[in-house]
Amino acid sequence: MDKDLNTVKTGRSYHHGQLRGALICAARVVLSERGPAAFSLREVARRAGVSAGASAHHFGDSRGLLTAVAAQGFAELDSAMAAAGPDIVALAQAYIGFARANPALFSMMWMQDLIDPADPAYLSAGRAAFDRFEQVHAGRTTRAADGPAAPSPRTIAAWSMIHGFARLALDDALGAEPESILPAVLANLPRS
Amino acid sequence: MDKDLNTVKTGRSYHHGQLRGALICAARVVLSERGPAAFSLREVARRAGVSAGASAHHFGDSRGLLTAVAAQGFAELDSAMAAAGPDIVALAQAYIGFARANPALFSMMWMQDLIDPADPAYLSAGRAAFDRFEQVHAGRTTRAADGPAAPSPRTIAAWSMIHGFARLALDDALGAEPESILPAVLANLPRS
Repeated sequence: MDKDLNTVKTGRSYHHGQLRGALICAARVVLSERGPAAFSLREVARRAGVSAGASAHHFGDSRGLLTAVAAQGFAELDSAMAAAGPDIVALAQAYIGFARANPALFSMMWMQDLIDPADPAYLSAGRAAFDRFEQVHAGRTTRAADGPAAPSPRTIAAWSMIHGFARLALDDALGAEPESILPAVLANLPRS
Repeated sequence: MDKDLNTVKTGRSYHHGQLRGALICAARVVLSERGPAAFSLREVARRAGVSAGASAHHFGDSRGLLTAVAAQGFAELDSAMAAAGPDIVALAQAYIGFARANPALFSMMWMQDLIDPADPAYLSAGRAAFDRFEQVHAGRTTRAADGPAAPSPRTIAAWSMIHGFARLALDDALGAEPESILPAVLANLPRS
């Protein structure tokens, strides 16, 4: 028993490749309980049952871990939008639904002072999510052959509206139940 | 000289009513240097040259001080919108300009976990700023005689777009210089 605990604490009981995922999961729990400001790598390691050294080995510091969590967040946002299909209003509802279901994660994903905004995996996940948004808003069913073009002002306007509604809902600033007003608000979404 | 310093440290050198304003000013400096997460009442007192007890006397704790700063922020946002006049695009530019000129303050104003969202002065300042937005968006030159009505979905949609653009600009997420795309984006603003 003591031996097992010790093995867990050093992280050696995880199969190769599993510890990284376990740490990201624990980080999401800590993030959702404490918010980004009070996030602590040490607490994440404790929750995952490994030493602080084991988490440092995988992520360096809390910035590295939060960057990996943010990249996963963008990948999940992308999946949620993909599941919504080709309708921009359904996609908008998926975007706002993701933000409201994962408030601490969604807020943290944009905090460039807490993460490494030049991290390739983070950049790539954020880019993929935005490209999907752009593609659905522009009414294309496939990506442009020469890669994504610069988004149109209408696409930026639609994204701003959806993102702003999500932020105001998270900050409890709308003065109404978000679900009750969302359909009427989205009737004003700029279309391509 | 020593006596003067001592007087300043206890806050007795401030005329009645001035210490509160001096602490709010110092809080804005500390907020802009450190961000909301690392905000410290002790540091604010040090910058204002008073004891921690003097600031506690006025604001209780850092939540009380941040709430007063947030209320001042909404009052200044309201003034910036008032200066823009009756055109909704000019008002949108003023809103986004205020956010970009005061990024830490603007972010903090919406963080209901850092402030007391039931504080009467905070509520009143936030309400006044939103009422002005609603009034200009609805194209009214005066407030409705029976007080502000519930905002229309188009007003919420326009606010979401402006607020979202401001947030994405602050988070450096637009992939373009905000000024260069703002006029074309605001051409898509839902009008009343």
